[in-house]
Amino acid sequence: MSIQEKCGVFGVFNHPQAADLTYYGLHALQHRGQESAGIVTSTGEKFHHHRGMGLVTQVFTREILDSLTGDMAIGHVRYSTSGESLLQNAQPLVFRYREGNLAIAHNGNLVNAELERKLLHDQGGIFQTTTDTEVIAHLLARSSRERFEDAASEVLTRIQGAFALLIMTEKKLLIALDRHGLRPLTIGKLNDSYVVASETCALAAVDAKVWREVEPGEWLVIDEQGMQTGRFAPRNKLSLCSFEFVYFARPDSVIHGKSVLATRKDLGRNLAKEHAVEADVVIGVPDSSVPAALGYAEESGVPYEMGLVKNSYVGRSFIEPTQDLRELAVRLKLSAVEDVLKGKRVVLVDDSIIRGTTSRRIVKLIRQAGAREVHVRISSPKVRNPCFYGIDMPTKEELFANKWDEEDAMGHAIGADTLAFLSEQGLLDAVGVDLDEIPNRCIACFGGAYPTHTFLT
Amino acid sequence: MSIQEKCGVFGVFNHPQAADLTYYGLHALQHRGQESAGIVTSTGEKFHHHRGMGLVTQVFTREILDSLTGDMAIGHVRYSTSGESLLQNAQPLVFRYREGNLAIAHNGNLVNAELERKLLHDQGGIFQTTTDTEVIAHLLARSSRERFEDAASEVLTRIQGAFALLIMTEKKLLIALDRHGLRPLTIGKLNDSYVVASETCALAAVDAKVWREVEPGEWLVIDEQGMQTGRFAPRNKLSLCSFEFVYFARPDSVIHGKSVLATRKDLGRNLAKEHAVEADVVIGVPDSSVPAALGYAEESGVPYEMGLVKNSYVGRSFIEPTQDLRELAVRLKLSAVEDVLKGKRVVLVDDSIIRGTTSRRIVKLIRQAGAREVHVRISSPKVRNPCFYGIDMPTKEELFANKWDEEDAMGHAIGADTLAFLSEQGLLDAVGVDLDEIPNRCIACFGGAYPTHTFLT
Amino acid sequence: MSIQEKCGVFGVFNHPQAADLTYYGLHALQHRGQESAGIVTSTGEKFHHHRGMGLVTQVFTREILDSLTGDMAIGHVRYSTSGESLLQNAQPLVFRYREGNLAIAHNGNLVNAELERKLLHDQGGIFQTTTDTEVIAHLLARSSRERFEDAASEVLTRIQGAFALLIMTEKKLLIALDRHGLRPLTIGKLNDSYVVASETCALAAVDAKVWREVEPGEWLVIDEQGMQTGRFAPRNKLSLCSFEFVYFARPDSVIHGKSVLATRKDLGRNLAKEHAVEADVVIGVPDSSVPAALGYAEESGVPYEMGLVKNSYVGRSFIEPTQDLRELAVRLKLSAVEDVLKGKRVVLVDDSIIRGTTSRRIVKLIRQAGAREVHVRISSPKVRNPCFYGIDMPTKEELFANKWDEEDAMGHAIGADTLAFLSEQGLLDAVGVDLDEIPNRCIACFGGAYPTHTFLT
Amino acid sequence: MSIQEKCGVFGVFNHPQAADLTYYGLHALQHRGQESAGIVTSTGEKFHHHRGMGLVTQVFTREILDSLTGDMAIGHVRYSTSGESLLQNAQPLVFRYREGNLAIAHNGNLVNAELERKLLHDQGGIFQTTTDTEVIAHLLARSSRERFEDAASEVLTRIQGAFALLIMTEKKLLIALDRHGLRPLTIGKLNDSYVVASETCALAAVDAKVWREVEPGEWLVIDEQGMQTGRFAPRNKLSLCSFEFVYFARPDSVIHGKSVLATRKDLGRNLAKEHAVEADVVIGVPDSSVPAALGYAEESGVPYEMGLVKNSYVGRSFIEPTQDLRELAVRLKLSAVEDVLKGKRVVLVDDSIIRGTTSRRIVKLIRQAGAREVHVRISSPKVRNPCFYGIDMPTKEELFANKWDEEDAMGHAIGADTLAFLSEQGLLDAVGVDLDEIPNRCIACFGGAYPTHTFLT
Repeated sequence: MSIQEKCGVFGVFNHPQAADLTYYGLHALQHRGQESAGIVTSTGEKFHHHRGMGLVTQVFTREILDSLTGDMAIGHVRYSTSGESLLQNAQPLVFRYREGNLAIAHNGNLVNAELERKLLHDQGGIFQTTTDTEVIAHLLARSSRERFEDAASEVLTRIQGAFALLIMTEKKLLIALDRHGLRPLTIGKLNDSYVVASETCALAAVDAKVWREVEPGEWLVIDEQGMQTGRFAPRNKLSLCSFEFVYFARPDSVIHGKSVLATRKDLGRNLAKEHAVEADVVIGVPDSSVPAALGYAEESGVPYEMGLVKNSYVGRSFIEPTQDLRELAVRLKLSAVEDVLKGKRVVLVDDSIIRGTTSRRIVKLIRQAGAREVHVRISSPKVRNPCFYGIDMPTKEELFANKWDEEDAMGHAIGADTLAFLSEQGLLDAVGVDLDEIPNRCIACFGGAYPTHTFLT
Repeated sequence: MSIQEKCGVFGVFNHPQAADLTYYGLHALQHRGQESAGIVTSTGEKFHHHRGMGLVTQVFTREILDSLTGDMAIGHVRYSTSGESLLQNAQPLVFRYREGNLAIAHNGNLVNAELERKLLHDQGGIFQTTTDTEVIAHLLARSSRERFEDAASEVLTRIQGAFALLIMTEKKLLIALDRHGLRPLTIGKLNDSYVVASETCALAAVDAKVWREVEPGEWLVIDEQGMQTGRFAPRNKLSLCSFEFVYFARPDSVIHGKSVLATRKDLGRNLAKEHAVEADVVIGVPDSSVPAALGYAEESGVPYEMGLVKNSYVGRSFIEPTQDLRELAVRLKLSAVEDVLKGKRVVLVDDSIIRGTTSRRIVKLIRQAGAREVHVRISSPKVRNPCFYGIDMPTKEELFANKWDEEDAMGHAIGADTLAFLSEQGLLDAVGVDLDEIPNRCIACFGGAYPTHTFLT
Repeated sequence: MSIQEKCGVFGVFNHPQAADLTYYGLHALQHRGQESAGIVTSTGEKFHHHRGMGLVTQVFTREILDSLTGDMAIGHVRYSTSGESLLQNAQPLVFRYREGNLAIAHNGNLVNAELERKLLHDQGGIFQTTTDTEVIAHLLARSSRERFEDAASEVLTRIQGAFALLIMTEKKLLIALDRHGLRPLTIGKLNDSYVVASETCALAAVDAKVWREVEPGEWLVIDEQGMQTGRFAPRNKLSLCSFEFVYFARPDSVIHGKSVLATRKDLGRNLAKEHAVEADVVIGVPDSSVPAALGYAEESGVPYEMGLVKNSYVGRSFIEPTQDLRELAVRLKLSAVEDVLKGKRVVLVDDSIIRGTTSRRIVKLIRQAGAREVHVRISSPKVRNPCFYGIDMPTKEELFANKWDEEDAMGHAIGADTLAFLSEQGLLDAVGVDLDEIPNRCIACFGGAYPTHTFLT
Repeated sequence: MSIQEKCGVFGVFNHPQAADLTYYGLHALQHRGQESAGIVTSTGEKFHHHRGMGLVTQVFTREILDSLTGDMAIGHVRYSTSGESLLQNAQPLVFRYREGNLAIAHNGNLVNAELERKLLHDQGGIFQTTTDTEVIAHLLARSSRERFEDAASEVLTRIQGAFALLIMTEKKLLIALDRHGLRPLTIGKLNDSYVVASETCALAAVDAKVWREVEPGEWLVIDEQGMQTGRFAPRNKLSLCSFEFVYFARPDSVIHGKSVLATRKDLGRNLAKEHAVEADVVIGVPDSSVPAALGYAEESGVPYEMGLVKNSYVGRSFIEPTQDLRELAVRLKLSAVEDVLKGKRVVLVDDSIIRGTTSRRIVKLIRQAGAREVHVRISSPKVRNPCFYGIDMPTKEELFANKWDEEDAMGHAIGADTLAFLSEQGLLDAVGVDLDEIPNRCIACFGGAYPTHTFLT
């Protein structure tokens, strides 16, 4: 799929190699953002920081890591399409305010950022970035509360939307999650150190043990005196972004006690229950849709095969084909295995359809490899609405599911014999957790309500 | 596994975008070599070329590709550990000789290169690289035969060992394969153009149709007059490197009519037949061992699961952990999925064991994720001998299989409950083709005879 | 000498190639700062900008210049030794404030920046740089005055110290000079365009004619309606930094109607009048001291010779000799011409002595070339005080002239037979202009009063 | 002037920091070539080398220098306009031949290279570069003489043209100069080490003392046993390129006992004697023509002034003005000082005129600065013939002096009031040495005979 999560965050408290751990943690979160990467460390007295465009491995060298001394650190990887001076927007952002230094790493999107920015402008505020994150820094610096914890709590109450947030001063590390829990954020322990990350896969990468997830509306501050915790909002209905399970998160991560891999297989199983079809083989679009394909295969009894192979070297600097060779665009990234597909009735499992362009190309590729029938099965519902919480989507009109009324027409549009989407119930059965409140996931983009809608008016 | 194939080659004749096609072809062959990449084009009158260290996407820019005009091209990707001035050894090599320009791209290793080099030195020859390939250029330039085809034929008769070879002059493209067919080399057609590549996946990438494989001992020359073909050696016993099927080739490639993916599944099936074990789950080391794991699962009835997840962003510039964090080395590249492994009896399928270091670390990782038993199954026989044909292996003493007499001791060494290897027969049943001669694959490194042994004495 | 001017500024209003002109203007000002360079353009609607570390020619490419569209631009070159994240401090700084975009390029140093910064912090201001320039932006954004001109005027009244300032909004270009005129700033005309630069050499580089210098305490705003001008401070005693004439400015520049080259020759002439000595040859330290040496030679009648040759390729990336070869440090940058010096009584003219280290090395070099006597003559007085207006100097204790009481001891310290400095009167006679007020130059670093001293208390 | 010398060479024998010394030596020779730079070191057993495009300071880092271990080294800086794959032609070239490694650094141009290359091609030789230097390596490797010294001597006899040559094997350093002594080459001593360089300024840079110049037709070999020397050609008439004195060499160098600076002043003095004119001021084109201008001023009694200032930051990556700003081309590199020129009768001294384009632009610049008269005086004769010894010149038709018959027409062409060139006798009186044979300088490009003409037939 072509939609893109924005950002992963990672933090370390009390480890002599804080920068190294953050490097490895960000590396494990690289799938959440490849545009820029940054690390800020604190020695307790001063900050060191480095940010750059590109992958974690491109931005940092051994020499740079060695210069990032200190036993506290926060880091960030970012995906974004915005603006001309991208480096400026790379995080963590670093500011000086009345109390000293401040570094912020933020995953998510505020829904009241524009409003707050306007208010700040009216009071003479100046901005160097176009990020929501700078708004948070301004609010923090302007708070009338003296204690950092109080000021932070005040600001957290004020900002609306999605945020998994790390804020570091010379001596303190603050961790906070928005009241809906729209983004994942988990704290781990590594001997005497605390580690915090967008996903548990990053905790595992540095051999930290999961301690607990941050709760919606909760803040924690760690410093030499220990850990304090509090709430800036009442315990709210949990509304984690469903797409974390469908597509964003790494399969080896665990969110709310649910294995992402197992959940994806369940999505595939539910999909098979809802939309069975006579077929010879089940294949998935690598890498993200393979677990759902495995689940579909298990449930349906149709064998799973590796019908598509991905070229693992496609990256940022790949030169896209010019006009004359445009037809190669998909082939250079995905390859269809003729031996698996020739003469077969194929179930193609993909995790979502956003614009439909890629789906059409993949179906064509599979047919060229000799498939007799292609039945496309999508392991999530139709995406019909934009996201206001940090997911970069096309406009409502550009969304594939809004262009046709019926699935037949949609299937025809991508060249498939049949096309079917998982139902919202099928999604929630797989990604939900057993709580009183239903739903406890954000499914706004599929057609559900926006969890923050009351704040938007 | 840690052994490394050396090189992939790609060539184009008669296409207005020869350089672009070669770029995409080399990109599809990137798994065969990540050290350097190069492209030489010919306009019919003159050459243009560019080579550099790193991945294809790092070496070439749109601007550079545009400067590589001409409708004929050869390209090369290389893996190597040799020497201090690596760029010099990057291929294709370009020379000027009495008839004009000469470019050579070579996959493989000559066994008589040192001898020939000495003879050339005695005659006053000077060398700028340490590659076998430069020897070929010298011999070609010194041939007393006037026609390029005759000179080439003479040289091909003289050189011994493994070579899939592309030689280009201003007007001609020569394609040749050693008499044992140790390396794969396939010709495709794309409308009026010829395309040649180490693997069919590269032909598919540029949408060319497979025409035919080059035969052992055969040469072809394509120029404006058309195609000539001849033999420099009698039709020999086919001895393609078994490791192409086991590990090197991309799963979507087809060699000698055999799907690499299907063959790997067969290796897994044969492995299950030979070495069954009571277990709850079968997992494979991604990406190369997944097909064999799927085959093992199908044959054994034990379900396949994605128990290991690979970090797809590990590359050349990754900063390895320093001493204090050494323990993280495997975790940063591979992640074990606890949900899949906890409390389970696990069959871990890997394609080979060379030194054993990585295997031991992976077994440990799986145990840390809670596996109750770990049964390692290797989808190839024990590697006991060095390769003289271009595969970079440790010394005989360093080879894991030479350090212990029994599989029990080996299993213990890597921390597995049991360890078993596929038999040579099990290998040949999967990778071989139906010919009179048996074996028709090179299995020298496992314990078989060297196909070229008579030439070594 | 080793002290370093901070920064040059350049601006263009109403020229279709504003970015190109700024590139060339900054290039002509490169001697004023080699650490970083930046250009911001305005199309009237939006900004484009690019900044980077290094020389103008390293920071910009044709492609980047082409992306900087718009017919208004400001640019900046910077020298600085500060901080770890240097790129952040590179100018022009760009901000968004309530009225839109704001870009600032600043040459000089505020004396009340720390105080203002503290006040801003107390009001919740956050800072991303450690520059004085960001303080100016904050003050501007917080002004209660609505019109840009009024707000700017208010801020200019408030800031104290040295500033030659360019501020650009989408539609307006503001030019301002501190009330003491500590830094040079001249406006030129190029057909229908206005051009402004730190030195006239940059106006000449783009073939603009000098229109007039900006007066101390004056501001000008140029927009589509034309030019407005006003004063934020009464016409003050002029106090241009003497070092502009002694060392900083390029010899082809003209400041306050005085040719820098001619003034330097006058400094040399006055030096000869004050400190004559029997000698065979006069030489200067290239390039900056050659004019003074020529003046000394003319006045004294002792012939000028090129006794020292400079290696023009020494730059940022030059690898300084390691311990074992430390002695080469001067030789690699300067070369003594034996033919000129052997057996001669030499007058060595240099423009100033800050720490004395380099002087000692140069004297040694000249002796090694065979000079019989070396008489060092400095074309400025003894530097005894720090500068608060933007010149990066060592501490008072480190200043050469503060280490000895007498010139004999000083001369001995650098290995010279005699050493003499120009008197303050000799300096002022050369660099001063004919005004009622005397002095009309800042000579604070030599021992005079600080022009802003009343503001510091 | 716009013609360009090709190359500088530097070598070290027996110094623990051979690579560092070579770096500094090449840096001092940077004016002889800015296209590429390279260093090869020998440990006695093996070579290390590094070459790259650009300035010495761009090609080498501390890390690279540290990797170039060994106490013997040769280095090279190169200027060239040839070819598409420039890096390949960068020197020193390194080869492997029957006896081991071979590195060659060469300043000059062979006149029989094409012939020898053809002969080598006919014998099956292959070439990787288009340099004459590779021809030398081939001949050396093919020599039937066993001892390195004998083989080298044989080859040196065979090659014709200009060569100042350093050849290094693992254990030996060979130094040789063509039989006409067309290029300078001087050996120095630094304690127990030998140092050799194209110019003495490079010896001075590393604090080595001049020992002696290499004689035309002489070779020297230094190894652990000491130094051998011999002749490959009889003591020939000395024919050093006159342009070394006129323009190429650094003013602080000494060639054949003559100071380059003093010689240039003599050229200016002779020019004043031959072509006096009523004037107010003498100026020179910086930097190369300043000494001649000083000489002209001394002889004529007209005062010397710095009427032109050079922008010292113009380098390779400077972005030339586009069409619309083309007029700025000279202004960006040179600046005229109005204070010096306004209303004056100016003598402008330049060292040579090749195409005339730059001269015309400079005269215009001087007139725009207000000069009343401009009298151009050239401190060398009219350049009328091409150079076959390594100087890159335009074709005969493009040479300025071949386009007009009379100096009046020439002067008019560049916009000067008068134009005059130094006579050949005036040149030889300054640059020649006192030997029986006259001329003892190569003045072929001015109209004299080619020293090697007998070898060309």
